[in-house]
Amino acid sequence: MNTPSFRNWQSVQDEVLRRIHAREWAPGDLIPNEADLAIEFGCARSTVNRALRSLAESGLLDRKRKVGTRVAAQPVAKATLDIAVIRHEVEEHGAKYGYQLIARDIAIPPLSVSGAMKTKADDKLLHVRALHLADDEAYAIEDRWINIRVVPDAEAEMFQSVSANEWLMKHAPYTHGEIAFSAAQASTGDAEIMGVAENSALFAIDRLTWDSAASVTKVRLLFTPGYQLRTGL
Amino acid sequence: MNTPSFRNWQSVQDEVLRRIHAREWAPGDLIPNEADLAIEFGCARSTVNRALRSLAESGLLDRKRKVGTRVAAQPVAKATLDIAVIRHEVEEHGAKYGYQLIARDIAIPPLSVSGAMKTKADDKLLHVRALHLADDEAYAIEDRWINIRVVPDAEAEMFQSVSANEWLMKHAPYTHGEIAFSAAQASTGDAEIMGVAENSALFAIDRLTWDSAASVTKVRLLFTPGYQLRTGL
Repeated sequence: MNTPSFRNWQSVQDEVLRRIHAREWAPGDLIPNEADLAIEFGCARSTVNRALRSLAESGLLDRKRKVGTRVAAQPVAKATLDIAVIRHEVEEHGAKYGYQLIARDIAIPPLSVSGAMKTKADDKLLHVRALHLADDEAYAIEDRWINIRVVPDAEAEMFQSVSANEWLMKHAPYTHGEIAFSAAQASTGDAEIMGVAENSALFAIDRLTWDSAASVTKVRLLFTPGYQLRTGL
Repeated sequence: MNTPSFRNWQSVQDEVLRRIHAREWAPGDLIPNEADLAIEFGCARSTVNRALRSLAESGLLDRKRKVGTRVAAQPVAKATLDIAVIRHEVEEHGAKYGYQLIARDIAIPPLSVSGAMKTKADDKLLHVRALHLADDEAYAIEDRWINIRVVPDAEAEMFQSVSANEWLMKHAPYTHGEIAFSAAQASTGDAEIMGVAENSALFAIDRLTWDSAASVTKVRLLFTPGYQLRTGL
């Protein structure tokens, strides 16, 4: 072999990528083991490991203990999205952030909410609806249920000037959660609040977070038409 | 200090998370350096490093060379989405996958496409429109432009039985790209193809991929109402 030596894991990664692209290593193929690649590339085995790990994280390689590393047969692209506090997201776009509370009450939620949050059907939760604005225009409607058994401090908070979105991010961290992205038609009420046509296509983010076994909060964010969530691949 | 010793990076991570949640380390605070934490936790410095790296990747810590590690002042949740080949996505949901080519031609694209793909305004590209089905129902419309200077093999491919989505994933890997998620209203034509009401809210994925400096393909995928992209946090 006439391979030049590789100094860092990025150059090893580039060479591995080149072989996958050139189909010298085809989808499903087992590639040489790390020790052999380290010898071929004239680098440390840990350098090869770092490069293969990175390619496995992007879904181009499948690594199985004892079996070895294969070129992914069904490559999956992975996109990582940053889910920021809405105020920060608006300000990062250079716009002026605004906030309006629409409603706040303590109520028994619909069964779809208590079911998802695994609260008792007759447990009262804190319900907050608010409008986030960018340059005085509607940006997103937040419709949120908060489990006040898990976040008792929220009960004292009126959410008049700070959104639940921002307050919870600071005061009620979660250990894990679920997030879903979809499209939804604007209801008459939401369309009116946003100042958009009824049935407009809105980008929706539904998020449910947990602190160990108990749910913290369930929120639906509806963004005004034109909103895009972007990231690199 | 009376801290028990920590054997693995996950237990170090749990303890760091606990301190952040309990606000022993508040947002914006500089936390002790790795060497001091390793002594406190009675573990290797590399174990502390692994734990802090993982927390930084999830946006809970900000690490700056020479400055040190702070609790993130503006915590950002990160969601990782798997973008699979549509056929695999449909089959993973236990549905029968179907595919119909709508149109295939070689044409000069609109300026919005050549501009984004950085092709010359009069370069001809391969344009493919197709319908993906799940259990014989419309699932997604694919509207795609392919740079045939970069992927010349695509010109011989009719996309009658294999979608461009699947073919490209196998034959034209990319080095990087951009992806955007949004909501769009169904046009009259798309609504007719999908069998849904005009102006229905559709979930849209726009993706543009690159191989080094040249664009490979630009695609818009429009999913039928009810589609959700889900992941864990």
